[in-house]
Amino acid sequence: MKSFMDDSLNSFGATTEGSSAGPLSDLVVVDLSRVLAGPYATMVLSDLGARVIKVERPGTGDDSRAIGPFKDGKSAYFTSINRGKQSIALDLKRAEDREIFEAMLARADILVENFRPGTMKKLGYGWSALHARFPQLIYAAASGFGHTGPDSQKASYDMVVQAMGGIMSVTGHPGGPPTRVGTSIGDITAGLFTVIGILSGVHDRQKTGEGRFVDVAMLDGQIAILENAIARYAVTGKAPGPLGARHPSITPFAAYPCRDAHVVIAAGNDALFTALCRAMDLRELLDDPRFATNETRSDHADALGEILSARLGEADAADWLARLDAAGVPAGPLHDVGEALGHPQVRARNMAIETAFEDGTPLTAAGNPVKISGFDDPASRPKAPRLDEHREQILKDLGL
Amino acid sequence: MKSFMDDSLNSFGATTEGSSAGPLSDLVVVDLSRVLAGPYATMVLSDLGARVIKVERPGTGDDSRAIGPFKDGKSAYFTSINRGKQSIALDLKRAEDREIFEAMLARADILVENFRPGTMKKLGYGWSALHARFPQLIYAAASGFGHTGPDSQKASYDMVVQAMGGIMSVTGHPGGPPTRVGTSIGDITAGLFTVIGILSGVHDRQKTGEGRFVDVAMLDGQIAILENAIARYAVTGKAPGPLGARHPSITPFAAYPCRDAHVVIAAGNDALFTALCRAMDLRELLDDPRFATNETRSDHADALGEILSARLGEADAADWLARLDAAGVPAGPLHDVGEALGHPQVRARNMAIETAFEDGTPLTAAGNPVKISGFDDPASRPKAPRLDEHREQILKDLGL
Repeated sequence: MKSFMDDSLNSFGATTEGSSAGPLSDLVVVDLSRVLAGPYATMVLSDLGARVIKVERPGTGDDSRAIGPFKDGKSAYFTSINRGKQSIALDLKRAEDREIFEAMLARADILVENFRPGTMKKLGYGWSALHARFPQLIYAAASGFGHTGPDSQKASYDMVVQAMGGIMSVTGHPGGPPTRVGTSIGDITAGLFTVIGILSGVHDRQKTGEGRFVDVAMLDGQIAILENAIARYAVTGKAPGPLGARHPSITPFAAYPCRDAHVVIAAGNDALFTALCRAMDLRELLDDPRFATNETRSDHADALGEILSARLGEADAADWLARLDAAGVPAGPLHDVGEALGHPQVRARNMAIETAFEDGTPLTAAGNPVKISGFDDPASRPKAPRLDEHREQILKDLGL
Repeated sequence: MKSFMDDSLNSFGATTEGSSAGPLSDLVVVDLSRVLAGPYATMVLSDLGARVIKVERPGTGDDSRAIGPFKDGKSAYFTSINRGKQSIALDLKRAEDREIFEAMLARADILVENFRPGTMKKLGYGWSALHARFPQLIYAAASGFGHTGPDSQKASYDMVVQAMGGIMSVTGHPGGPPTRVGTSIGDITAGLFTVIGILSGVHDRQKTGEGRFVDVAMLDGQIAILENAIARYAVTGKAPGPLGARHPSITPFAAYPCRDAHVVIAAGNDALFTALCRAMDLRELLDDPRFATNETRSDHADALGEILSARLGEADAADWLARLDAAGVPAGPLHDVGEALGHPQVRARNMAIETAFEDGTPLTAAGNPVKISGFDDPASRPKAPRLDEHREQILKDLGL
């Protein structure tokens, strides 16, 4: 174990720059994953300092290189998720390429893939084969339905698990058409749970010296984020429906219309409700038994919403937000993506960073939300790789 | 370092049950957090084996004990998120209670809180004070806006960051009213990034012997999950709007109406589009230049949607799903929460588990989506704690 880690740091390791490179700077990730769930996981690992080597299909590479939006023919989608990674093109059905791949696995800490379950086994790289040959290797698989269960072998994509996992049934407006969560939350959630599984495996390996198999299903991740909706179903036996723009169990906690635009008000407890009523000159609500507790307010959420909306309609959103802010009531505007990225707090936290397409053209992307003391939180990240860009360096590091 | 870890394992550690208890079974978490973002993070840690000790306010405890849905006066919301944790009631302004708290910190690996920034400092427990006294301690703070930046001191809640972070601007239907993601994705995302920060800190501590400060903002987490929406804004300079139930850059990838219900079809590449057209007897689409590539299909998403919907309307969802399944085209039904929890794959993956209210009454909750080889994945989890239930045991473990 020790010798592997030391060796890793000296030649094939992520960096020799020390702590400024991130807490995972001694870890090497071999990344077979494509499109989003796997690449999102390895982006998080890379942002935290790990060396991530994308192993891409010769010719076309990661499918997301062909998914828009494009700039000058290059995918901004691919670029934003794969910034800072290295690329080598390998055909895992060719003997010479398998040799390179296996030399990488012998030195790596983590293997990530998001193929349909069974694909790795067909290549001779199933978990038991890998574990026997590379006992130190942590192998993480993100898939649609997971590596066990009756639907294991089926392919899936984000929207299928958003639909099957129930989140679409609680998103949208009552009686309205089906509504997707506007980002690929099925992939992203699976990516985050994959990172958690990998880091748990890294911790376990410190104790045992052995790698583990981490098996994350996108569908499982959707169940895991249903929270209150499961509690409501479990208690009432009735499946909850969509509620538009309000919280099911906390009131007032919703988007309300002002004269010019909507605002969100989140008065999550009695003290905040009192502050809200005072700030809005609606003190009479404090004596109304319908609004006495959070539970009764939730029972009368529509009636309360009408009263608040009528009052909010008398002025503009900015005026109301200033007033609520002064009263310490959590509230905020509905930002579009440009407004969100330009917000002073988002800027101050380095959450709109600069990376670059493979030719160096700059691209704005989301930053790293995991801020850890003692490590840099850079306002820019290295560019995304050209297909096979790092072949020479990788072969040199491997002594091949 | 070594002696601390050993000591932790022997007396104050999570478990002596060995590997079946999870990869984090040697870690002790002191948890000051309330409601959702922090408690969700410590739930994930607990499910992976860590010993989590909730330090609750005497009298009322965690605010979410008073948030519905309720059964016999007990919160199912609180119970589902706090299963398997221990509870001690401490008033951090009283000298005797501070002594107990500090004895816990001296033996713990991780401290988690989700107060408004500044609260811990006022209590004398800011990061520099804690780090000086408890150098081994990893301190993770989840807050609305983070511990730095101009809005740092403001309180926030899930819906405020959903609004300010931009996800509401891409969720819903064009021209329709504001739409919240139907679960508290602002809290949950922050919780997951907090876990990633904590485990990164645990890994770093193996190398340095020192704890770190992990600072996660709910707003930052919302930016981090915008993915494709940021890429579109960065390339076009135009903020994307909501798209109802379809993917912005992949087509066909949407919910479509059959005769009786909607289905989601996710034909994410050319091969799947070909398979889809064949399975639906729509081969003529394969010769239509509008639908030749994913990019052209995305440019003509509405036209393609109308053709597919017209054909799908001729039969029921179950028939179409059987046909698409046989053709290997990713597709699925729109499940409500009950259907999702009852689905055979979800059951087979232990994603609908049984836990219990503090009095032992059973409650269905979401399982642990991080499956790791060599560790049990139980179909039930220990109950949620009564307020202060574990005081005696904790004091005994501390030798107090």
